[in-house]
Amino acid sequence: MSLKGRDVISLGDFARKDIDLVLRTARKLEPIAAKHRRTTLLKDKILATLFFEPSTRTRLSFEAAMQRLGGGVIGFADPKTSRAGDWRGETLEDTIKVVNQYADLIVMRNFIEGTAMTAAKVADVPVINAGDGSNEHPTQGLLDLYTISREKKKIDGLTIGLVGDLRNERTFHSMAYGLSNFDVELVFVHPPDASLPDPIAKRISDNGLSTTTVSKLEDVIGRLDVLYTDTTRKEAFKDAGEYEKFHAAYPHINIKTLENAKEGMIILHPLPRTDGIDFHVDPAVDETPYALYFKEVFYGVVTRMAILSLVLGAKM
Amino acid sequence: MSLKGRDVISLGDFARKDIDLVLRTARKLEPIAAKHRRTTLLKDKILATLFFEPSTRTRLSFEAAMQRLGGGVIGFADPKTSRAGDWRGETLEDTIKVVNQYADLIVMRNFIEGTAMTAAKVADVPVINAGDGSNEHPTQGLLDLYTISREKKKIDGLTIGLVGDLRNERTFHSMAYGLSNFDVELVFVHPPDASLPDPIAKRISDNGLSTTTVSKLEDVIGRLDVLYTDTTRKEAFKDAGEYEKFHAAYPHINIKTLENAKEGMIILHPLPRTDGIDFHVDPAVDETPYALYFKEVFYGVVTRMAILSLVLGAKM
Amino acid sequence: MSLKGRDVISLGDFARKDIDLVLRTARKLEPIAAKHRRTTLLKDKILATLFFEPSTRTRLSFEAAMQRLGGGVIGFADPKTSRAGDWRGETLEDTIKVVNQYADLIVMRNFIEGTAMTAAKVADVPVINAGDGSNEHPTQGLLDLYTISREKKKIDGLTIGLVGDLRNERTFHSMAYGLSNFDVELVFVHPPDASLPDPIAKRISDNGLSTTTVSKLEDVIGRLDVLYTDTTRKEAFKDAGEYEKFHAAYPHINIKTLENAKEGMIILHPLPRTDGIDFHVDPAVDETPYALYFKEVFYGVVTRMAILSLVLGAKM
Repeated sequence: MSLKGRDVISLGDFARKDIDLVLRTARKLEPIAAKHRRTTLLKDKILATLFFEPSTRTRLSFEAAMQRLGGGVIGFADPKTSRAGDWRGETLEDTIKVVNQYADLIVMRNFIEGTAMTAAKVADVPVINAGDGSNEHPTQGLLDLYTISREKKKIDGLTIGLVGDLRNERTFHSMAYGLSNFDVELVFVHPPDASLPDPIAKRISDNGLSTTTVSKLEDVIGRLDVLYTDTTRKEAFKDAGEYEKFHAAYPHINIKTLENAKEGMIILHPLPRTDGIDFHVDPAVDETPYALYFKEVFYGVVTRMAILSLVLGAKM
Repeated sequence: MSLKGRDVISLGDFARKDIDLVLRTARKLEPIAAKHRRTTLLKDKILATLFFEPSTRTRLSFEAAMQRLGGGVIGFADPKTSRAGDWRGETLEDTIKVVNQYADLIVMRNFIEGTAMTAAKVADVPVINAGDGSNEHPTQGLLDLYTISREKKKIDGLTIGLVGDLRNERTFHSMAYGLSNFDVELVFVHPPDASLPDPIAKRISDNGLSTTTVSKLEDVIGRLDVLYTDTTRKEAFKDAGEYEKFHAAYPHINIKTLENAKEGMIILHPLPRTDGIDFHVDPAVDETPYALYFKEVFYGVVTRMAILSLVLGAKM
Repeated sequence: MSLKGRDVISLGDFARKDIDLVLRTARKLEPIAAKHRRTTLLKDKILATLFFEPSTRTRLSFEAAMQRLGGGVIGFADPKTSRAGDWRGETLEDTIKVVNQYADLIVMRNFIEGTAMTAAKVADVPVINAGDGSNEHPTQGLLDLYTISREKKKIDGLTIGLVGDLRNERTFHSMAYGLSNFDVELVFVHPPDASLPDPIAKRISDNGLSTTTVSKLEDVIGRLDVLYTDTTRKEAFKDAGEYEKFHAAYPHINIKTLENAKEGMIILHPLPRTDGIDFHVDPAVDETPYALYFKEVFYGVVTRMAILSLVLGAKM
């Protein structure tokens, strides 16, 4: 069993054994990051990070992961500094066929759904989807699963709330696909018209997971072992008015919302937790034992170290 | 014979023996890139990449080359993120005198003709011209020569078409200077008023090369061993109307244009092959055996590995 | 005595023995940079460079220093390519809590005074202030002190002129705090309303330094061993008119200004020496033996190598 040479486009393509392999490998590599060390595991390799959409976390997390493993990094953080974003309008396919010749692995983020798949089709080297519009963000899902497995010592048997705009947020899509491989109970908390897209809902149903849907977080907070939430993205809405309306109906997290939370519950959030209007998770929550979202960032580096190592076939 | 410490500003400064040295060195280093490995040949060195003009290929190609050789890279991809581009208007000379203290070698791209020479004059470390406006792009010329030598097993004796805006495109200038050292027949295909600048035409004539000029590619396609072409640059024209007029008269490459091509002919193109209006080389051509422009990108990394190693005096 | 784990926010926090340690360490590491070599002293470490404000010198200087010591670098040169600068308005605290998980050390520049201190408070890893608005730029001060110690073979006993907008320019603030630990005579040369802020003036007075204030450089030029100056920053002024008025009254440096300079006097300047209107230091001065500002750039890399090594606790 191996992930060598594998594209990472959708967590829907990952079987339970693939996920388990990533989590086991992450556990093995975690001490390198925890002890602030670097190894030479990937010293022969070059990673290209192509960010057509702004990012702090995901880009720096992948670059830190590659650096901890001794590899080299090239890329761009802003398409305007590249021909891919200038007036000539180079196609994504051409850009990928080129970068393909420079690096051993490509990590790409793009505003448009499906672009990661397009890139994977033309690239000879593996492509990792670091977010394609409203579609998916599979390494975020994997790091969320790793965070749960580390903090709760298991995933099977837990009750996990997915709280937010499940329709438009790519993080929920990847996380839901990932969780569909586990024996968990899912609780969906979202405004009207914000349920998971059909193919993902079908996968969860096909895999026999038990699910509940509510509109108010307060009604289910006491049952959750994990509260998984993400900020809404303005880009997912046609106009500012629609966004503001949705924002008002959107479950925000604060000390009051958490009043009846279970002991040991953990809150995960891909961050940022601001949404252009206010805090989606109130900073007062940071001081509670529930807040795992900054530690999750650390587990993110560790999980990406595992993904890079596995896809590049590092001998461990 | 050595290129140690040498600036690479114009291919007009390169003698046949200099070019041969680059090609031989590239051949020696090619396996490192081909096998997706890195060495420690330049582990002691730092490259600064100063891109005042956007680039995907050239910047990432140099950075990949340096990383394959174990060296470090610093620099900027966007002058607006640097004092060189802010309101204070730091002069190029001052920027170079500063960066000069940080790196062992400077690679620079700039919108303005002659800036590479200006930089070389004030820098203590070698400067490599990665494109200065409409003037030159010498490492592109070297990688094109390497591509020909690898794919056709020789350069001398070939018939090579230069197809496009020979007046304004820097890639043609460097390539023509490079080819002037070889025993080749040159076929120029261009719209009116788009012939090579006088000093380059004179060099070719002084070196006794046989040349032909036509306006239609179809008239000569059957004779060419190499079709070397590049997209027009909007920046080279005073207004959009003039650019569109020129674009209409400009030789585009598609399946029909290639109908009578010689077996074994190869098409080289520095890319991107889009020009803001349409495809300069039709994607259908990619599927033909003539299309070498993506493999050329790989040879580009290899050639730049050779140039970096030679200029930095690496012991090989 | 050690600086391991120490934040570098203000030179006002540095005692004489701390400064001496930095200077001694810089002297030890200088040959690595001078001989264009790299070591593995920090090979286990990752530096994050977060530049919310444009920079050539400081960012590339830190990155070159880290690369000379074998460490890895991640970061951004433009906040717009990061979530920290997008419409969601992630707070600085959140950005730091995140980057904190990726790197072993953070170097940050920001338009706003006090942000370095804010970052240091929330970060677990050390934070180095690379300039926070009009407040401080402590590593610039340290490199200036190193330059003086190398070129004049001592700091104690010298007469040092601080020439410019001492009120608004952060470089003067850090340098003045630094110099307050030495037995030097300070000569302040500035337009009206441009004296040092009170807390810094008080420190100098408390430490018993002898000071003089004049408005014309010509009146004191013959007494100075070191002329320390910096360009005005437009950002420090409310409107363009006010800036232009101040600019006219501001001491500029040219061959005439230096007519009666002492033999062996050195001019230091953090650069750029352009100010959007003209040259603050005339390029003709570059040819005089007084001009040390480009060599100062080299000492900057060396000093930053020392700071990185000390803060990260490298065994030397």
